[in-house]
Amino acid sequence: MPVELSGRALIFDQNGSILVLRRSERSRSNPGKWELPGGKPNPGESFEESVRREVLEETGFEIDIHHSAGTADQEVTGYHVVHVILIASIRSGGLALSNEHVEFRWVKIPELSLLDRADWFDQYSQVYLIGPVPSPDAA
Amino acid sequence: MPVELSGRALIFDQNGSILVLRRSERSRSNPGKWELPGGKPNPGESFEESVRREVLEETGFEIDIHHSAGTADQEVTGYHVVHVILIASIRSGGLALSNEHVEFRWVKIPELSLLDRADWFDQYSQVYLIGPVPSPDAA
Repeated sequence: MPVELSGRALIFDQNGSILVLRRSERSRSNPGKWELPGGKPNPGESFEESVRREVLEETGFEIDIHHSAGTADQEVTGYHVVHVILIASIRSGGLALSNEHVEFRWVKIPELSLLDRADWFDQYSQVYLIGPVPSPDAA
Repeated sequence: MPVELSGRALIFDQNGSILVLRRSERSRSNPGKWELPGGKPNPGESFEESVRREVLEETGFEIDIHHSAGTADQEVTGYHVVHVILIASIRSGGLALSNEHVEFRWVKIPELSLLDRADWFDQYSQVYLIGPVPSPDAA
């Protein structure tokens, strides 16, 4: 199955909170769900350029990228996306959402468990950030 | 610092062994060290294309990519490489090394601890595969 790449920024502020965005209800995938800013490279664009561009478009922030922090997979009809998560901080800019998202929050990592997360971000959160979420069957 | 991407294949055979390659002593980075096949996209090349091309060039194998399995960072003078590790298996082909490598082995995961690993692959192995290696100080 074809594999596509997506770069995502885990942007921390000075208090250790991270920036999460809620997708539009009109999104084709994961409508209304919470996720991290970022996305796929355009043709000819480098990985770094694509992450910086997507984050700027979606948040209004220029970021500094520090290091990588794992991956998550997303199955879409006919292909497969690998989301690469990068730890980042804000260099400059002011928060301004694109029409792709309808809401933002700065949350502490444990608060991620309270959000209705996009499929890949749910996987990532459980593996790397908040641990496995008990299934509804596990009473 | 600029960030570049590298895609690496963790290729499993039917026995659960993985394919590792030893870099040439003439390599600029990590000479003589063990690593996974893969490398950086060429301009205009997609992530998937680059991983398949690099693996074919370095091993002679066409691969199937299954899912992602984390990342590792490498600091190089003036920039930073994010290695994205992908679980893969062999679709076709026969093993043939490029001049970038001088030796190959199929190893079980615990045997990785016996190999002198490239810096980023050492980091990856300790985080994801074999656990932390005691420092020489820890007697």
